[in-house]
Amino acid sequence: MSLEILSENKAHGGRQLVVKHASAATGTDMIFSIFLPPQAEQGGKLPVVWYLSGLTCTHANVTEKGEYRAACAELGLVFVAPDTSPRGDNVADVEDYDFGKGAGFYVDATEQPWAKHFRMWSYVTEELPALLAAEFPVDLDRQGITGHSMGGHGALTVALNFPDRFRSVSAFAPIVAPSQVPWGQKALGGYLGEDRASWRGHDSVALIEDGARLRELLVDVGDSDTFIEKELRPELLEQACAKAGIPLTLRIQPGYDHSYYFISTFMADHLRWHAERLIGG
Amino acid sequence: MSLEILSENKAHGGRQLVVKHASAATGTDMIFSIFLPPQAEQGGKLPVVWYLSGLTCTHANVTEKGEYRAACAELGLVFVAPDTSPRGDNVADVEDYDFGKGAGFYVDATEQPWAKHFRMWSYVTEELPALLAAEFPVDLDRQGITGHSMGGHGALTVALNFPDRFRSVSAFAPIVAPSQVPWGQKALGGYLGEDRASWRGHDSVALIEDGARLRELLVDVGDSDTFIEKELRPELLEQACAKAGIPLTLRIQPGYDHSYYFISTFMADHLRWHAERLIGG
Repeated sequence: MSLEILSENKAHGGRQLVVKHASAATGTDMIFSIFLPPQAEQGGKLPVVWYLSGLTCTHANVTEKGEYRAACAELGLVFVAPDTSPRGDNVADVEDYDFGKGAGFYVDATEQPWAKHFRMWSYVTEELPALLAAEFPVDLDRQGITGHSMGGHGALTVALNFPDRFRSVSAFAPIVAPSQVPWGQKALGGYLGEDRASWRGHDSVALIEDGARLRELLVDVGDSDTFIEKELRPELLEQACAKAGIPLTLRIQPGYDHSYYFISTFMADHLRWHAERLIGG
Repeated sequence: MSLEILSENKAHGGRQLVVKHASAATGTDMIFSIFLPPQAEQGGKLPVVWYLSGLTCTHANVTEKGEYRAACAELGLVFVAPDTSPRGDNVADVEDYDFGKGAGFYVDATEQPWAKHFRMWSYVTEELPALLAAEFPVDLDRQGITGHSMGGHGALTVALNFPDRFRSVSAFAPIVAPSQVPWGQKALGGYLGEDRASWRGHDSVALIEDGARLRELLVDVGDSDTFIEKELRPELLEQACAKAGIPLTLRIQPGYDHSYYFISTFMADHLRWHAERLIGG
């Protein structure tokens, strides 16, 4: 596995890396960022928190605006932020912000022309974990996962499909029921086709209805988030978790919107929540 | 004074604003950002920390990458980040990153074609303070100032010229002796002309040699900053402060570079240092 370190910067006592590698899953180069806290210098493997990003984002948005490094340095957490889709001149795209490049929705596409490269599910659940374990001091027995919006959808669906892999799961303003909202219907229909049975494995509420479980779950959503009613619909997650007996801490945060100003405000909270489950207790 | 709020986002319990206004000083529209911590909701005026940005930056760099909001919210500090130059199609420019737009150097230019709009000294020392006092809950009796690189130069020279205005002064990787380094010689020569006597009021080391004083000063510079030897030269500030009896805390931070990864790492430290002098003690 050949990695190219695009940048390395010391930050909060640790190292913020941006890494490029040829991905077998997507058939393209992929870029991700990884923060290694100061504890990585001591040898030994560290717990890792995955952060899956939202529509239009690359690794860079959370890396620049997420305000996670101080907490990760304090808590001894590795923080990994993949891209949201394959990229490159050969990769199919449309001009829409909510489909194609920057909008992979963390699925393996089966429809053309997307099936060739849009394999973000395989990338984040198989290829990238193996690469991290081979190349960085991360302990795959202590993984947490979170994400924002489309990436909150990614975090929840990955965790629900791999319940033994993640000790901690949270999300910021996640899409929880893509089958029931415009962003999700467009993306799942476009990538997976119109047979809605194939969507259920990538719909958190449907997964819970079908028996998938999480030990517990922390979700923050701003009540001034302009997408809350049409796209995010946290009440559907709340109902599904209540029915399934999944302990959900759902916090509707007054005055907060969908931006990184919201995410960065609650990032340290989430990281402490993950650390309690990955390290303490 | 008519202000246009370009954006407002709740963050860390406070409000992050981006504001546009017609500037009499520069004869252009100017944009700045201001963070009002949660304490602003209680009424009363709050201490304010100015942050002057470096070459190529606008208000946006520190606003997105500076990681100042958590500390400002905790400490009750307003944080103001002006732009680094006038902008607009009618404003003179060159293609250089270190002169013209994005590189105002916090002087009032006397040379053509710069003299018409490049009046950042008047803007940050007169017009913007008056605007803040009129429009926002800031207490001009409790001002601190900091900045990065060219903005560190700005912070130090403004503070040295207005010693009674600022209770606290710090800088990240500042240009301390522009008359003696390439960036500064180009900028001061270009904006102020070749009579070096006119440069001394905008050169921190020269100002100190000429008798200007600060109560005390905190400066961080990374030892992996690629500009440290040629452009920043913190040893010249150290020598000038030692000779003048100015208590300088100069911290050469191992492994850190010139980027916002460095700034954001030590931002909370600086803000606590300012708060101790603006609020406590």
